[in-house]
Amino acid sequence: MSFNTFGQMFRVTTWGESHGPALGATVDGCPPGITLSEADIQPWLDLRRPGLNKLTTQRQEPDQVRILSGTFEGRTAGTPIQLMIENTDQRSRDYGNIAQAFRPGHADLTYHQKYGLRDHRGGGRSSARETAARVAAGGVARAALGALFPGLRITGYMVQMGTKHIDRTRFDREEIARNNFFVPDAGVVAEWEAYLHHIRTEENSSVGAVIEVVAEGVPPGLGAPVYGKLDADLAAAMMSINAVKGVEIGEGMGAAALTGVQNADEMRVGANGIEFLSNHAGGILGGISSGQPVVVRFAVKPTSSILTPRRSVNTAGEEVEVITKGRHDPCVGIRAVPVGEAMMACVLLDHVLRDRGQTGGLRGLIG
Amino acid sequence: MSFNTFGQMFRVTTWGESHGPALGATVDGCPPGITLSEADIQPWLDLRRPGLNKLTTQRQEPDQVRILSGTFEGRTAGTPIQLMIENTDQRSRDYGNIAQAFRPGHADLTYHQKYGLRDHRGGGRSSARETAARVAAGGVARAALGALFPGLRITGYMVQMGTKHIDRTRFDREEIARNNFFVPDAGVVAEWEAYLHHIRTEENSSVGAVIEVVAEGVPPGLGAPVYGKLDADLAAAMMSINAVKGVEIGEGMGAAALTGVQNADEMRVGANGIEFLSNHAGGILGGISSGQPVVVRFAVKPTSSILTPRRSVNTAGEEVEVITKGRHDPCVGIRAVPVGEAMMACVLLDHVLRDRGQTGGLRGLIG
Amino acid sequence: MSFNTFGQMFRVTTWGESHGPALGATVDGCPPGITLSEADIQPWLDLRRPGLNKLTTQRQEPDQVRILSGTFEGRTAGTPIQLMIENTDQRSRDYGNIAQAFRPGHADLTYHQKYGLRDHRGGGRSSARETAARVAAGGVARAALGALFPGLRITGYMVQMGTKHIDRTRFDREEIARNNFFVPDAGVVAEWEAYLHHIRTEENSSVGAVIEVVAEGVPPGLGAPVYGKLDADLAAAMMSINAVKGVEIGEGMGAAALTGVQNADEMRVGANGIEFLSNHAGGILGGISSGQPVVVRFAVKPTSSILTPRRSVNTAGEEVEVITKGRHDPCVGIRAVPVGEAMMACVLLDHVLRDRGQTGGLRGLIG
Amino acid sequence: MSFNTFGQMFRVTTWGESHGPALGATVDGCPPGITLSEADIQPWLDLRRPGLNKLTTQRQEPDQVRILSGTFEGRTAGTPIQLMIENTDQRSRDYGNIAQAFRPGHADLTYHQKYGLRDHRGGGRSSARETAARVAAGGVARAALGALFPGLRITGYMVQMGTKHIDRTRFDREEIARNNFFVPDAGVVAEWEAYLHHIRTEENSSVGAVIEVVAEGVPPGLGAPVYGKLDADLAAAMMSINAVKGVEIGEGMGAAALTGVQNADEMRVGANGIEFLSNHAGGILGGISSGQPVVVRFAVKPTSSILTPRRSVNTAGEEVEVITKGRHDPCVGIRAVPVGEAMMACVLLDHVLRDRGQTGGLRGLIG
Repeated sequence: MSFNTFGQMFRVTTWGESHGPALGATVDGCPPGITLSEADIQPWLDLRRPGLNKLTTQRQEPDQVRILSGTFEGRTAGTPIQLMIENTDQRSRDYGNIAQAFRPGHADLTYHQKYGLRDHRGGGRSSARETAARVAAGGVARAALGALFPGLRITGYMVQMGTKHIDRTRFDREEIARNNFFVPDAGVVAEWEAYLHHIRTEENSSVGAVIEVVAEGVPPGLGAPVYGKLDADLAAAMMSINAVKGVEIGEGMGAAALTGVQNADEMRVGANGIEFLSNHAGGILGGISSGQPVVVRFAVKPTSSILTPRRSVNTAGEEVEVITKGRHDPCVGIRAVPVGEAMMACVLLDHVLRDRGQTGGLRGLIG
Repeated sequence: MSFNTFGQMFRVTTWGESHGPALGATVDGCPPGITLSEADIQPWLDLRRPGLNKLTTQRQEPDQVRILSGTFEGRTAGTPIQLMIENTDQRSRDYGNIAQAFRPGHADLTYHQKYGLRDHRGGGRSSARETAARVAAGGVARAALGALFPGLRITGYMVQMGTKHIDRTRFDREEIARNNFFVPDAGVVAEWEAYLHHIRTEENSSVGAVIEVVAEGVPPGLGAPVYGKLDADLAAAMMSINAVKGVEIGEGMGAAALTGVQNADEMRVGANGIEFLSNHAGGILGGISSGQPVVVRFAVKPTSSILTPRRSVNTAGEEVEVITKGRHDPCVGIRAVPVGEAMMACVLLDHVLRDRGQTGGLRGLIG
Repeated sequence: MSFNTFGQMFRVTTWGESHGPALGATVDGCPPGITLSEADIQPWLDLRRPGLNKLTTQRQEPDQVRILSGTFEGRTAGTPIQLMIENTDQRSRDYGNIAQAFRPGHADLTYHQKYGLRDHRGGGRSSARETAARVAAGGVARAALGALFPGLRITGYMVQMGTKHIDRTRFDREEIARNNFFVPDAGVVAEWEAYLHHIRTEENSSVGAVIEVVAEGVPPGLGAPVYGKLDADLAAAMMSINAVKGVEIGEGMGAAALTGVQNADEMRVGANGIEFLSNHAGGILGGISSGQPVVVRFAVKPTSSILTPRRSVNTAGEEVEVITKGRHDPCVGIRAVPVGEAMMACVLLDHVLRDRGQTGGLRGLIG
Repeated sequence: MSFNTFGQMFRVTTWGESHGPALGATVDGCPPGITLSEADIQPWLDLRRPGLNKLTTQRQEPDQVRILSGTFEGRTAGTPIQLMIENTDQRSRDYGNIAQAFRPGHADLTYHQKYGLRDHRGGGRSSARETAARVAAGGVARAALGALFPGLRITGYMVQMGTKHIDRTRFDREEIARNNFFVPDAGVVAEWEAYLHHIRTEENSSVGAVIEVVAEGVPPGLGAPVYGKLDADLAAAMMSINAVKGVEIGEGMGAAALTGVQNADEMRVGANGIEFLSNHAGGILGGISSGQPVVVRFAVKPTSSILTPRRSVNTAGEEVEVITKGRHDPCVGIRAVPVGEAMMACVLLDHVLRDRGQTGGLRGLIG
């Protein structure tokens, strides 16, 4: 039973509300002996930090992570790692006007329905601030993966924002870190900036996005049949990120339009064993990694916290109009990029541990 | 840790290989006192039965389910329910030619890589036959849901096959049961039959599909934050079905192209409480059901078992060409419709139990 | 959430009622590649088989186990292993007189209270027949342990029956298999037979017992802090066996009377590393195995199914007297010996897999 | 997979080392709407606080708990509750002499063996300080239980210390809070004080204890067959407490010496339904609560941190003698009393939630 935990062997339980004193992640099951300090985690948090660039919420949070337990003399001890991030900028007054009304499309309503109460300050637990804890946990997972599989590399980036798409022929990994959108295509940056500026200031609205996360250097054999499928866990992991409405592996929804002849990833024998001639499968066959890059995409909806009035109801059962002031991202998809990477890291490490638990690292030989 | 189990409180563990003596599902956590016999389960199995119509595999399996435990005098006893389906038509000679070679795009390869051996007869555990066990378990879930929420209704249907889409303006629920595609649009049936015939007999190929599953009458409050999200569990459930490559909730991947103004599901107060003016969210907000219909779609890739030769390798590390004879569905998406419904039923019941466990059925009032 | 499952990574879900068509165990997470057939499991079942000797229930059950899934060509495939045992001797007429009345000290009452119905035939799910499934699962665990740790040996035996104790100075492992009590002390067999005969035929009663299970050759490092403690899992495993009321590790309850000086297991350096001068700890320190023999004891209460009338109530709320006819063991502790061994095997294998999952088999060096 | 988590639905994950900056408990699955503040938790922590009385460690820790998340306006929000206790008195210099040597009978050795490193300062994770987090979590469980079952009362006390036993004929619940031993028998206090003083100062040793925890007002129907047994979970919970070596339910190990006639808890019909004439079963039948008081006992071994030199080895593989200076309890069993109560509370609440999840609170009627 896991309401706030993900992972089976590498287990991450996130806790904390947007406007409480702190939030964090309790990480259990990390392998011992991994070099780990705050310095291994902080850079990932900095990437998703609010207030970092002009395209995201102007809430100012340093998001400094502290490791409260689970390491000794700079290495993981095999015991639970507590990662805490204190909330410092909690201007809850900004949110007062939505204490009674439900934002259309927001968890305001369902938290109230389910729990009979909700922390309306900044969305409480449903706030995107929760994802800071995931990113911190992802930093631990990356440290462990780095020690176990030095060649494993996880790369996330936006491929679509609203109606705008990148041009994959211009794909440039180095570009991702150079712009505020985490896009691998320098050619779209200026256009996207203008577009997002328009959406926010002219339309008083927000916009969705599609993020792609690729893991290269993943060993074959991660995952398991049926409900332990690597892609099932990735789907749950990505869908569990705030505002995500769709998840794709490899060809994704587009696989429906292909024929079996088109979709086959043919194989040849190369210098290093099997070589695949394509990767429609996104690196996963029958729920188990094949050694090809693992490719996941997910769609983030436009945030429901917008300045345009929308018709709604309040807790008294009255019809109202809702405008959400406060400091909201016009495209929450941007900051979802490091979150998606973190979830990929957590899922992969979990499956590495699960696999070596069951199989002991046994692998079927070819040739 | 669950390699072959899904659900937390209503737990289903499926077991069995395609060509073993039997397969089935061990169902734990079902509420006691629910009226249940084989007659409540068999109809759902009949819908996905192989050999039932000319569009699916010609393997002949009666797929008769037996309840071996967990009921007493026609009602569930609160103890594990064992559902067994014997395999009767196990012509494994058909599959001999792929014992050593790996079908491109098939779990053949990754099972070999992970486990060091695989039951090549009919795909063993990776066979779509495994989904029979899910459908049987779904029958138990439906029986319990029916007792708890008589108005809850789950409906699955195809909305796309290959490059063909239904016309939603002609949506007719009654039509679903009348054709071999589970399509709600009588207008496409003839065309799709011709198309599939062509794919199979002219192209020696197969084709993908998109299935939509809708649950109406779902109470608000199911699901939980973060990793207990209803949509995260639905995503995992659908992605765990063989050959699924993408999952969408509500607007799904299309949500990326919308603005916050467009995507808001505005609310008014009607005779029965909140009335929503749209359902972009697919009935789930912040991971918790809102009372609107829960809408899930998933894409099924074309099966990799085709008659067109594809380049591959074998266990000896040699380059080969693979043709898959045997009795394979040209569109496995068709039989995925009852499987998707079953997974929806299992996930919903699991969340009903989890919710009443934690909250005791408490609900926040509006008005 | 596991109502009927034990283990985390090596997961055993037992199912089936005393008088249903069959019972069994669904085993998930077993390592692949382990040699396994019915012949590896049946001998353990034969040891606990009812009707085997004159001291136990005269119900005649061949208890033939069938492996329905999870093996291929004589080896485990890494997929769920379904173990089924058909019930053949279901003379439920014997039990008719307790359909309405509750046996004092029996689960009759609480099953009724909890589930609102119960399968009264032979105790349904609460019957000791359920332990046959555990023994079968234990056979799988033994096969895997045997492959991984050839020197690991599990030995169970009775050390007390009613008021009678063995004389540990006469301990003889070979004797265990030679008598009907699984006692390692030939000197008590005749006396115990007379004693049990008296209890059953003169007193129309039953009697309790204490069983000890020792595992030698257990590697150090199994277990984990806090709730993953090896001894906590052993305690749960043994307490989950029908009729068990107490569990001890090493000195057990007797540790309370010792001083720290007495209880210290001092260490010296021998030819093979650490040598312990005593084993008060029972092989477990801080929840983790030390390399010493793991020693567990558990007490089995006398069965409540006796021929002496006891005052009770029935479902109508009336006061009644209850006599239990039927074929009941006068000392259920005897047949609990192979069950305790099976639980030890399951717990150890589970922890082996969990440990190598987290640590990868890393071990701290000494010297 | 839960290395540091207990509970299935009410889930407690403890974290933190003895000499780290803080320790705590992450509590997931608590029912929403429960009145909860630090004031509801602190009194229980004060009971086990080190330095509180002269019989326990003189380490000075205020053990102030802070709730960092999961409540809103004084009530639980249904989201994870983070309970943090800062360590203030971390005089790690006291422990320097055991950084390399292993205390006989201590987790020093096995942590080193398993993880390859250990936080030797105060025992790190294996320290009894971890139990503060359990007590804090138990405070949350008590708050929820109090709201759900106002008549439920949990009472823990010592019944044995070393070779000394209480006289149950003098049992006085009110006495428990009046003395430093949590004993319900005023007649032994002076003797026990002299005895413990002697053990500590004359023998330079420590001593074990037996604690009994009784829960009255427990509703019938908690628990489930096989591995979800209430007593199995209680056994694991108690055995998971530091230094516990044995757990008993009701008659416990003594049940082995009874006959079925003696052990039967006969029933009559009273004004309020079933009345039991005895409680040998300790309130649990077939793993399910019967409505009688739930009675658990556990034995705590004498601490291995003593001033008498014991023979041991060190990490270099050399033979050494070990003396443990520092501030250690001569009878850790004393402070285990509130810990045992906390575990009882956590297990009961977990089973309350699990039961109402599966059964919805359905109960079989009698009469």
